[in-house]
Amino acid sequence: MSTATGTKYVYFFGDGKADGNATMKPLLGGKGANLAEMNNIGLPVPAGFTVTTEVCTYFYDNDHTYPPELKEQVAEAMQGIERVMGAEFGSTTNPLLLSCRSGARESMPGMMDTILNIGLNDETVEALAKQAGNEAFAWDSYRRLIQMYGEVVMGMKPENKEDEDYFEDILHKKKEAVGAEFDSDLSADHLRELVADFKSTVKRVTGKDFPSDPLDQMWGAVGAVFGSWMNDRAMVYRRDYGIPHSWGTAINVQAMVFGNLGDDCATGVGLTRDCSMGGPGFNGDYLINAQGEDVVAGIRTPKLVEETLIEDAPDAFEQLTEIGQKLEQHYKDVQDIEFTVQRGTVWMLQTRNAKRTGFAAVRIAVDLVNEGLITPKEALEARRIPADDLNQLLQPIFDPAAKKQAQEDGSYLATGINAGPGAATGKICFHAADAEAAYEEDRDVQLILVRRETSPEDLRGMRIANGILTAFGGASSHAALVSRQMGKTCIVGCSELDIDYHEATVTVGEKVLKGGDWISIDGFTGEVFAGQVPTKPSEVVEVLIHKTIKPEDSEAFQRYEQLMKWVDEHRTLQVRANAETDHAAESVAFGAEGVGLCRTEHMFFNHLDEIREMIIADTKEARGLALAKLLPFQRDDFTELFRTMGERPVTIRLLDPPLHEFLSEHHLEEQPDLLHKLADMMGVASEVILRRVEEIKESNPMLGHRGCRLGIVFPEITAMQARAIFEAACAVKKDGIDVHPEVMVPLAGFSSEFDNQAKIIRDTAAEVMKEQGVEVEYLVGTMIELPRAALCADQIAKTAEFFSFGTNDLTQTTLGMSRDDYGGFIGYYQENDIIPADPFQTIDQDGVGRLMKIGVEGGRGSRDDLKIGICGEHGGDPASVMFCHNIGLNYVSCSPFRIPIARLSAAQVAVAEE
Amino acid sequence: MSTATGTKYVYFFGDGKADGNATMKPLLGGKGANLAEMNNIGLPVPAGFTVTTEVCTYFYDNDHTYPPELKEQVAEAMQGIERVMGAEFGSTTNPLLLSCRSGARESMPGMMDTILNIGLNDETVEALAKQAGNEAFAWDSYRRLIQMYGEVVMGMKPENKEDEDYFEDILHKKKEAVGAEFDSDLSADHLRELVADFKSTVKRVTGKDFPSDPLDQMWGAVGAVFGSWMNDRAMVYRRDYGIPHSWGTAINVQAMVFGNLGDDCATGVGLTRDCSMGGPGFNGDYLINAQGEDVVAGIRTPKLVEETLIEDAPDAFEQLTEIGQKLEQHYKDVQDIEFTVQRGTVWMLQTRNAKRTGFAAVRIAVDLVNEGLITPKEALEARRIPADDLNQLLQPIFDPAAKKQAQEDGSYLATGINAGPGAATGKICFHAADAEAAYEEDRDVQLILVRRETSPEDLRGMRIANGILTAFGGASSHAALVSRQMGKTCIVGCSELDIDYHEATVTVGEKVLKGGDWISIDGFTGEVFAGQVPTKPSEVVEVLIHKTIKPEDSEAFQRYEQLMKWVDEHRTLQVRANAETDHAAESVAFGAEGVGLCRTEHMFFNHLDEIREMIIADTKEARGLALAKLLPFQRDDFTELFRTMGERPVTIRLLDPPLHEFLSEHHLEEQPDLLHKLADMMGVASEVILRRVEEIKESNPMLGHRGCRLGIVFPEITAMQARAIFEAACAVKKDGIDVHPEVMVPLAGFSSEFDNQAKIIRDTAAEVMKEQGVEVEYLVGTMIELPRAALCADQIAKTAEFFSFGTNDLTQTTLGMSRDDYGGFIGYYQENDIIPADPFQTIDQDGVGRLMKIGVEGGRGSRDDLKIGICGEHGGDPASVMFCHNIGLNYVSCSPFRIPIARLSAAQVAVAEE
Repeated sequence: MSTATGTKYVYFFGDGKADGNATMKPLLGGKGANLAEMNNIGLPVPAGFTVTTEVCTYFYDNDHTYPPELKEQVAEAMQGIERVMGAEFGSTTNPLLLSCRSGARESMPGMMDTILNIGLNDETVEALAKQAGNEAFAWDSYRRLIQMYGEVVMGMKPENKEDEDYFEDILHKKKEAVGAEFDSDLSADHLRELVADFKSTVKRVTGKDFPSDPLDQMWGAVGAVFGSWMNDRAMVYRRDYGIPHSWGTAINVQAMVFGNLGDDCATGVGLTRDCSMGGPGFNGDYLINAQGEDVVAGIRTPKLVEETLIEDAPDAFEQLTEIGQKLEQHYKDVQDIEFTVQRGTVWMLQTRNAKRTGFAAVRIAVDLVNEGLITPKEALEARRIPADDLNQLLQPIFDPAAKKQAQEDGSYLATGINAGPGAATGKICFHAADAEAAYEEDRDVQLILVRRETSPEDLRGMRIANGILTAFGGASSHAALVSRQMGKTCIVGCSELDIDYHEATVTVGEKVLKGGDWISIDGFTGEVFAGQVPTKPSEVVEVLIHKTIKPEDSEAFQRYEQLMKWVDEHRTLQVRANAETDHAAESVAFGAEGVGLCRTEHMFFNHLDEIREMIIADTKEARGLALAKLLPFQRDDFTELFRTMGERPVTIRLLDPPLHEFLSEHHLEEQPDLLHKLADMMGVASEVILRRVEEIKESNPMLGHRGCRLGIVFPEITAMQARAIFEAACAVKKDGIDVHPEVMVPLAGFSSEFDNQAKIIRDTAAEVMKEQGVEVEYLVGTMIELPRAALCADQIAKTAEFFSFGTNDLTQTTLGMSRDDYGGFIGYYQENDIIPADPFQTIDQDGVGRLMKIGVEGGRGSRDDLKIGICGEHGGDPASVMFCHNIGLNYVSCSPFRIPIARLSAAQVAVAEE
Repeated sequence: MSTATGTKYVYFFGDGKADGNATMKPLLGGKGANLAEMNNIGLPVPAGFTVTTEVCTYFYDNDHTYPPELKEQVAEAMQGIERVMGAEFGSTTNPLLLSCRSGARESMPGMMDTILNIGLNDETVEALAKQAGNEAFAWDSYRRLIQMYGEVVMGMKPENKEDEDYFEDILHKKKEAVGAEFDSDLSADHLRELVADFKSTVKRVTGKDFPSDPLDQMWGAVGAVFGSWMNDRAMVYRRDYGIPHSWGTAINVQAMVFGNLGDDCATGVGLTRDCSMGGPGFNGDYLINAQGEDVVAGIRTPKLVEETLIEDAPDAFEQLTEIGQKLEQHYKDVQDIEFTVQRGTVWMLQTRNAKRTGFAAVRIAVDLVNEGLITPKEALEARRIPADDLNQLLQPIFDPAAKKQAQEDGSYLATGINAGPGAATGKICFHAADAEAAYEEDRDVQLILVRRETSPEDLRGMRIANGILTAFGGASSHAALVSRQMGKTCIVGCSELDIDYHEATVTVGEKVLKGGDWISIDGFTGEVFAGQVPTKPSEVVEVLIHKTIKPEDSEAFQRYEQLMKWVDEHRTLQVRANAETDHAAESVAFGAEGVGLCRTEHMFFNHLDEIREMIIADTKEARGLALAKLLPFQRDDFTELFRTMGERPVTIRLLDPPLHEFLSEHHLEEQPDLLHKLADMMGVASEVILRRVEEIKESNPMLGHRGCRLGIVFPEITAMQARAIFEAACAVKKDGIDVHPEVMVPLAGFSSEFDNQAKIIRDTAAEVMKEQGVEVEYLVGTMIELPRAALCADQIAKTAEFFSFGTNDLTQTTLGMSRDDYGGFIGYYQENDIIPADPFQTIDQDGVGRLMKIGVEGGRGSRDDLKIGICGEHGGDPASVMFCHNIGLNYVSCSPFRIPIARLSAAQVAVAEE
């Protein structure tokens, strides 16, 4: 905005009215907008003004200067404050004191600077002392101003441990010298001496005098607070929370009120209801006779508003209770407030929607509806229940007391990347085979699989273990992906662990744990503990999955059910499960409306002998024999899956991974007798097998002979899988279940590839249905997981009856980034703002998302009722689910434990667009 | 087209006019269109009619039936033939005989069937005998009809060696029985007996009589010829030559003329000028007293038109010469004709533009311009000189006589994939290190590097060798790509070679060659010979590069120069070279207008010690020390490159490959002392190096830590390279050369990646220019080689000053297909029509091409003068060059030896659109 047009840079508030309001957060920041709003609704707020975020932007664009209009607008607002507060800035009889606080659009607690008591100097301090009737109070306020101003404005803040802490050192020495235990033990004289010491130290260190002119102080404070927007802490915080640096901060200059004038004064923070578990009732912390910063600083232990304030200050308690109700009525949400009680009167310094745990979020949303404050639709707003937080209702947790104990007693070992939420404890086990052996011996064995990294060979071990802990890999490593899929607690990339398979030890610093020792992992936080920290399952899961609690006995479950009922009423996007037979029932309990991805190779890993025989076979006939052995296993698996899913559609993806995932040098090394076993089984020389292993080795397996490329070169694989699917479907249909199989061809890039496979599938289906004398409705479609498939979707949709975006692979190819290899740079990328988010967790909308849009447009252009879904990991990520809704997908598919989250996200985006 | 609208399915020609003309090839086929055209321009053509390709399509769409209108249209055309030829089909006094030939849009020589002498039966044969005054001729014609008809229409053709060859067996036995050496030794009675035998054999084998009704014969022939469109041979041919199966063939039914009525008759084929080297003058083959098929069958050795026809048949020779001139005047191109001389009169049976070698193509095009038949612009039409054929003027060749000798004397070993054109001979050498050692000893050593496959470690050995031969890999393997880049003769994937490095032998069947034995490879054909087959360099290259022939002494060179002058006058697309310092001069000689891709890592491979030191270094400082050692090498290289290229722009790509290409387990295995050498050099424990090697190992290197991801995580690498570039540029600028460096950031997918690197480059440039006191104009841009980069080109172009499409990697990621791994399926894909062409040779226009268009639109949307080029291998592929022109690129960049081809392609597409 041009400065020439007379832009309004300063928004005044005070005396029951304000220039701004709560909708103006981008311009006034959260704090400023809500200070204005509270004025507008008649709550007691000390008068003040907000300098807009546009000034911050101007400040950084113009070499730390201000728009020319600013000075006049500030002067005018100052007069307003003086008028409302009945005091004068710089007056030596009735001085007005000011605070100067940052206030960004999104809360950034503690990241930026604040200066209080602006306006004090050697003259005004005397006036304040007289007015307050409290000399020590006045000089202490002056002392605090010099300290804050020196640190924040004049650069005397100790940034590192080795830096000199000028003011605290002097204060400390003074207290020692006069035998004072607390600051409050210092007399007015002591404090006057301290002020002199502080001022001379400022001069000595900075070469400049502490400014005595109140206006100089105010402008110095404003500049410093704008400057703190770009301090290192604030930059890191914004990076972590995805706040753009370009937003800038607003500044609030406000009349001081004092909680430290005596025992009829107090200061505190509070919540209009409990934000940990969601229960009703005001609660908070306060200190009698204290200034706001003291509550946060933790020097004195605060008291609880809900317990003692009614006795300490019954009037204030009543005012607060009333204010809390008024705020909830007005904001229609739980508020997080700051207040000061000055001589019995409550002043509001801040209000904002309160942060809350997932547990609390669900309870508060449901309660607010029941209290009539909001509608069910409003309860679904994304800001009320960040969909990811639903996880807290589903995962097992550590018993809170036991965890606290573990944190304190030295059991804490290290922190890795929290890849699979939940809490788990078990005995350390290093190898999948050992896990299986232990499980054979004791079905209730408690294990944590501890690996440098995991591979598909570890799958069965991972299923048995309570949790998975790896030293390497990121949030999208094999261990992380599979754990999320299985709903297992998992920590990856815990690089402080030194794992020695040979010695069977995990070493962290000086601590050495052995195989069989207990270890506990918190997948919510990434913390690893030695020993056994007891866990408990989530109540919702006990009701839904384990059926160990009856629905009517669980309030938490009833609230979850209520919420999900509203969710399902509002969402239009369907939600399916990525699940094989063994997770199908669970996925239905979580609300899956079908299976979006059944990976047939998961079944193959249970029959490695046969699949290896198929790989080694060098003729179509020999391959056919091996495949014939696999057929009944596949058919039985599919039969069970179809029965569980009933009439819901079930998408079955044909064999996808490259053959070397089933047989490679790595397997031969790990199992020294495997080569001979295979040679004996196949009746061939070892050399034949070794040559085949060499043949199928690949430089870039992700871009190699996999997906439909296997089924094209070896059509008998596709034919066998199609036969298994349709034999199973016919059998279940005969039992009266109206099955809906959807056969999915993986990795097609050319329509000719799809057509080749579709013909085999359709021919086989016709053959089987004729044999069985049953008709089954089915679809044949493809995964869109290569850029070319999205670009040529119009061609592919001519014959494909559905699409499912495989966004894991689509991300890998579109970004040219392997999730197995991006560890070398992704950390650096995220820390240095090269990349906004992990593209394997949240869809890269500009790149991958654009391709998806091209794919949707192309596909629907050729077939306007084309059914389109997504079955990558992104299907369970809230932002990605919303994107999928926006580009018109029919469904998302995700791991069973992500289904409630996906449902909620789908409802939230639908509600947002209504 | 609906049959109800009375579509014209039959096109008559005869008596100097025709329903069709030469432009109607899609409908009438090539042969039919040109028969019509020859009629229209007054050449002697036996009357006939063409059944359109639409009938063929109808035939296949409607279960081998014809449109209802066809019968009547054919009957009408038959009457026309009878009228023009003054004979009657089926007449027992003046019978008309017909031929029935296929004729597709594109010539498919010998792939489909032909039936001659239609209309003969036991009655008409007597009339023919009487009319011709030659009983043996008539019965031989009848005998031929039954044989062709039996084989083609009635299914008696021997398809395999073991099948019975009914007719030839009977003929053979008859000749033995009567003591005849040639068919022509058989008397009319013998032939009459043969006819009877043939007819009874038809009945015996097929159960059906040979049809005596001439109309039945004609319709039978038409059906069989349409049927032959889908025979196996024809399908394979079309696949190989990229002819769509959907085109269908036309059929030409035409009055028979006879070259076998006596010694005033003849039959022949000819070219209006030499199509091997391009010299002027009619030349061809003919046989006196023979039918057309005899010339092709090779039973008698034909005579040469240009040598003896003037004596054998002076009138016919005069007619032919005149016809040849008339044809060239009319078609403005060399014609390939078939003719029959019947009793002294020449009849034309076919004309078409002649196929020619690359040598001939250039000479003919230039000569036709000089003769005033065509304009220079017409000379550039793509059909006259397929741009790829220019290669023949540039590559060394085997001495033709010596090669023929080698083919005949048993030196032939095997045939692989012709990956790098040219001919090369040398001593077998298995290891790059051995090649280097041999080269040290003898700078003129002649070597062929024979490897199972090649890797970057082999680069220096490949440079020394005359040619490269590998047992594995496809047309896009490392060996193939690098050879094309170096302009080296290369054969890859020669799977018959059994290479034993340990024994130092190459075995093919029973033949064993040792290291040091001579071997010769023909990169045009893929043939491998034992022994030394002498080669000679191309004349053009001798003039341009070796300067061993003066331009004025080489007519071939002068024609090349003339052509390229026209080329440069017409093209708008610029052509640059993919070249490092050592090929820069050569690229300029070939006409490069700049360097489009200088791969800095090629220089790194010459300084492996330093780059390995950089890799192992674990601090920024240690890396800096190693890089400081590399700086002078890079700077010297760039200085030389800039001097050679002068004022032409030079695009330098920063380090691209993953670090493990310089140091991996593979290197440590191949060089057992390397580990200790490195440990000593760096003063670190071997374990440190082994751990680092493990760290940088990748699962999918193509999608890993490479490209700008290296320069971002290790900014000191980028800084060093930028410094080397600008120090070199400043030095050269000081010498008065106005250098134009263009610094290219590889593998950027996010604009933030580009911005990060661009800042380092621009800061370094400013620093160096200040130090040196010189200003250098330069650009900073990026390779677009990831789908995301193309999709987000609008964002990247905000700061990038140029784009260069890296279509090798862009193809790999867009198609999800690694060129190192596609060997497992690409062969199957091409044989089975899954994929139309090798996407690494010709741009996949629907997929990769669409992304390129998105990239161009996005980039120019943000920066309308954005310079855009391509530097993948596709930059030298004619179809791809034309595509690049069409989507508006500024330049293509390719290997030096492909530059003339790219220039010609660029001119051809420009001419085509004018």
